[in-house]
Amino acid sequence: MTTKTRPGNFFEDFQLGQHLVHAPPRTVTVGDVAVYQALFGSRFAVNSSDPFACALSLPSAPVDSMLAFHLVFGRTVADVSLNAIANLGYAGCRFGAPLFPGDTVVSDSRVIGLRQNKDSKTGVVYVHSTGLNQRGETVLEFRRWVMVRKRDLDAPAPETVVPTLPAEVPAAELHCPFSLPPGAFDTTRSGSEFLWDDYAVGERIDHVDGMTIEEAEHMLATKLYQNTAKVHFNQHVEREGRFGKRIVYGGHIISLARALSYNGLANALSIAAIHGGRHAAPSFAGDTIYAWSEVLSRDELPGRDDIGVLRLRTVATKDRACADFPGHDPAAADPAVVLDLDYSVLMPRRQ
Amino acid sequence: MTTKTRPGNFFEDFQLGQHLVHAPPRTVTVGDVAVYQALFGSRFAVNSSDPFACALSLPSAPVDSMLAFHLVFGRTVADVSLNAIANLGYAGCRFGAPLFPGDTVVSDSRVIGLRQNKDSKTGVVYVHSTGLNQRGETVLEFRRWVMVRKRDLDAPAPETVVPTLPAEVPAAELHCPFSLPPGAFDTTRSGSEFLWDDYAVGERIDHVDGMTIEEAEHMLATKLYQNTAKVHFNQHVEREGRFGKRIVYGGHIISLARALSYNGLANALSIAAIHGGRHAAPSFAGDTIYAWSEVLSRDELPGRDDIGVLRLRTVATKDRACADFPGHDPAAADPAVVLDLDYSVLMPRRQ
Amino acid sequence: MTTKTRPGNFFEDFQLGQHLVHAPPRTVTVGDVAVYQALFGSRFAVNSSDPFACALSLPSAPVDSMLAFHLVFGRTVADVSLNAIANLGYAGCRFGAPLFPGDTVVSDSRVIGLRQNKDSKTGVVYVHSTGLNQRGETVLEFRRWVMVRKRDLDAPAPETVVPTLPAEVPAAELHCPFSLPPGAFDTTRSGSEFLWDDYAVGERIDHVDGMTIEEAEHMLATKLYQNTAKVHFNQHVEREGRFGKRIVYGGHIISLARALSYNGLANALSIAAIHGGRHAAPSFAGDTIYAWSEVLSRDELPGRDDIGVLRLRTVATKDRACADFPGHDPAAADPAVVLDLDYSVLMPRRQ
Repeated sequence: MTTKTRPGNFFEDFQLGQHLVHAPPRTVTVGDVAVYQALFGSRFAVNSSDPFACALSLPSAPVDSMLAFHLVFGRTVADVSLNAIANLGYAGCRFGAPLFPGDTVVSDSRVIGLRQNKDSKTGVVYVHSTGLNQRGETVLEFRRWVMVRKRDLDAPAPETVVPTLPAEVPAAELHCPFSLPPGAFDTTRSGSEFLWDDYAVGERIDHVDGMTIEEAEHMLATKLYQNTAKVHFNQHVEREGRFGKRIVYGGHIISLARALSYNGLANALSIAAIHGGRHAAPSFAGDTIYAWSEVLSRDELPGRDDIGVLRLRTVATKDRACADFPGHDPAAADPAVVLDLDYSVLMPRRQ
Repeated sequence: MTTKTRPGNFFEDFQLGQHLVHAPPRTVTVGDVAVYQALFGSRFAVNSSDPFACALSLPSAPVDSMLAFHLVFGRTVADVSLNAIANLGYAGCRFGAPLFPGDTVVSDSRVIGLRQNKDSKTGVVYVHSTGLNQRGETVLEFRRWVMVRKRDLDAPAPETVVPTLPAEVPAAELHCPFSLPPGAFDTTRSGSEFLWDDYAVGERIDHVDGMTIEEAEHMLATKLYQNTAKVHFNQHVEREGRFGKRIVYGGHIISLARALSYNGLANALSIAAIHGGRHAAPSFAGDTIYAWSEVLSRDELPGRDDIGVLRLRTVATKDRACADFPGHDPAAADPAVVLDLDYSVLMPRRQ
Repeated sequence: MTTKTRPGNFFEDFQLGQHLVHAPPRTVTVGDVAVYQALFGSRFAVNSSDPFACALSLPSAPVDSMLAFHLVFGRTVADVSLNAIANLGYAGCRFGAPLFPGDTVVSDSRVIGLRQNKDSKTGVVYVHSTGLNQRGETVLEFRRWVMVRKRDLDAPAPETVVPTLPAEVPAAELHCPFSLPPGAFDTTRSGSEFLWDDYAVGERIDHVDGMTIEEAEHMLATKLYQNTAKVHFNQHVEREGRFGKRIVYGGHIISLARALSYNGLANALSIAAIHGGRHAAPSFAGDTIYAWSEVLSRDELPGRDDIGVLRLRTVATKDRACADFPGHDPAAADPAVVLDLDYSVLMPRRQ
């Protein structure tokens, strides 16, 4: 009777090389931008102002990098991770063409690896997911691996194929959508005088402010993205679950950390790549999120003297201020840490 | 001193044939669509993607049928039901021209029936409400009857006129805004391979997922629609009321049920008519809403082989999963049921 | 290590005549309008409908006056009041060109007064803030004074300069963006037959309805405006603070009062000036806000017989209905009063 309902894929439903076409397509609008703004309070000028974006040679203000991420990612959930027990990791996440209001994004995934676990109850699925705009340009691509339940515990194990995952996206492979004539970048309106040249490798920045998460907020966010992961929405089930409450989407914490990072990194125009990261602990409504960042490297973009790359480690905590950079010592875990992200941003250079 | 304030109409203020012009007009935007998206998380492709809608011969993605309903309905509240004790029913609700971002909708109502109750304190008002776009096209029409308080208990009873209410909107009278060339419908991007032809009368579908309602969410929704019914917004009054808390707008549950129904009815392009329905019990913040549907009939649209009609019964529950179809037996009421809706959707046919 | 972070200005950082350029610029969209609509539920027709606004000689529906205010004000917080202990007052707040979706607003402030307090720990900073659209037209200007902490208690006191603050914005200096041909104003669609001519000086209006504030709502609002005042967002800090909880942005109460005032003042097209006001007490999530208004004066606009000015006092309360106009006696403070606002609105005249 219930065959019309899609139960999501179980481990044995995935096949190496399989192409997953995710539904539905999503036209992005200034409405999405406003809801995202209301959720995270970001102040990056390039996302906030059309004229500011035009001065960077864009046609209008692009959506925040993480909104693009969430929209592409959200589409993949129903096919990839509806029956996942755990999101194990990300790699090789590269941002391409910016997403502008009016664009329509679709997401597809290819299965690039499969490994059944020894318990024969679960397996790890590796996918390469891609978001394309209506012109077929890549908006975002990333690899992701998740542990997925088997429906039929007797289903035979597939051949084990573990893909080689990129440890990083090299600076030379980053896409830079901005072009900046000398003198065109307005540091008074961007909110910071500090450019790429001013950051030192090893420098740590406390982003100071904290933001509390409400149940309504994180649910509005994931529904905006059409992300259907059950643990975010259903208190009736989650009250009986491991935590007794709904779990905040991990990407929500990345968005909060990115918005908080404006204070100290105001000229980080966009995220160009996410090399890797870890949701160290779950977050819940009522948590107050803080963040700090460390400059891991400062790289040039080949052939470009207007824009450079900062590779950053941003750590987010809950209910703990970051003046002393909790978690900076990899040897000593800090229980307040909820996110540890390794990524690269684009920033104007002094010309 | 307070004559500037509109107290809403009481029973004796209504006259048979009276034309009520509701305020204010409402221009619908992509902003409204985004807020609605964030509230309900719907995934129907035709509302989510401009190109997908264009392939169905529309100029752009129309707003969700229920958003159109709430906007038209919301306008009527201040004049029709501000002093209502109970919303008694709906009938003959027919959707016409889709509402697109940029359209401006106005609502008018005509009083089509009056019946004073035996207690002489209240009466039933029947109205026929219509929403029109800026071109004067009907977006929506429906009959509704509500029990309204008298202001002056000594006011004479009007002549009793109880209108004949349509038991259904016949398939032949449904408006179909879609036109679908053979092969134009993309079932990979819509999220389901199941078309009109694939549903059987009597088939039941559990929509599986549940969504929890927060106070902020249902209040944001009704304020978006400019629905001013007091019971949704005012905890200071409601804490002394019958339930001790704010009551969720019944239409909120319909929107949740419609969004949940994507899982099993992904190709239900729009609601063409609501034949009738019942809010079996009130819902409150904290409730988790589930839904299941039954196919009541499968009808052709006269002269059309691209699109057909499914008449559905959708039942929504609170804090109870729907795998066993609670409330399917009309002889045995299930206390978890909050909504029982009889309506028709349009769905592509196999060509 | 943390020099990249902007700590906000302390008292000794301000200099008389100093020009503060606030970041970032903000392009306003129909998305912002929808989020604002969902937060406050306003029904003023001119903000709700493009055609209605066009009949008043505008190109499209302008954003609500208070949304324009919050956007201009929000930009100033990071530079003016991040280290403020108290917002002491406003004066000479005058609205200019309406803000339309698509416009980009920037905010600047000039320091017009400084006075160190006797305790040598704090001082009062007076600023004149201005919001400009992309054509350089003034959208809003206001004076504001705040008590700000000193970073270095030994920093020398500046010369005391206390500016002369306007007690009111004279009617002759108000900007009227509307132009109304005889017969063009549709009182059926505006929701009230009462025009400028119909209000009497001394008349009091109870706006009847109450609206409860949720944590998610007031945080969504301030994040939408990019207002970074810490007390609104951070429960982890505020739970140790004076009230043990987050404080609702005072401007949120003004927006609620303005939205509630539709019932009784439906034809108040826009706010032309805020002469002064007082946040009599803080508001918190869970409070239900009510409001009432008194007509202080009825003024003509020079050379105009289509539009007039009503000067109003609007009082908002929490958890107390306003049928008996709490706080109307200036000699007897009412503890339920949270806002007492003196401002002028524009309203069509009978032609």
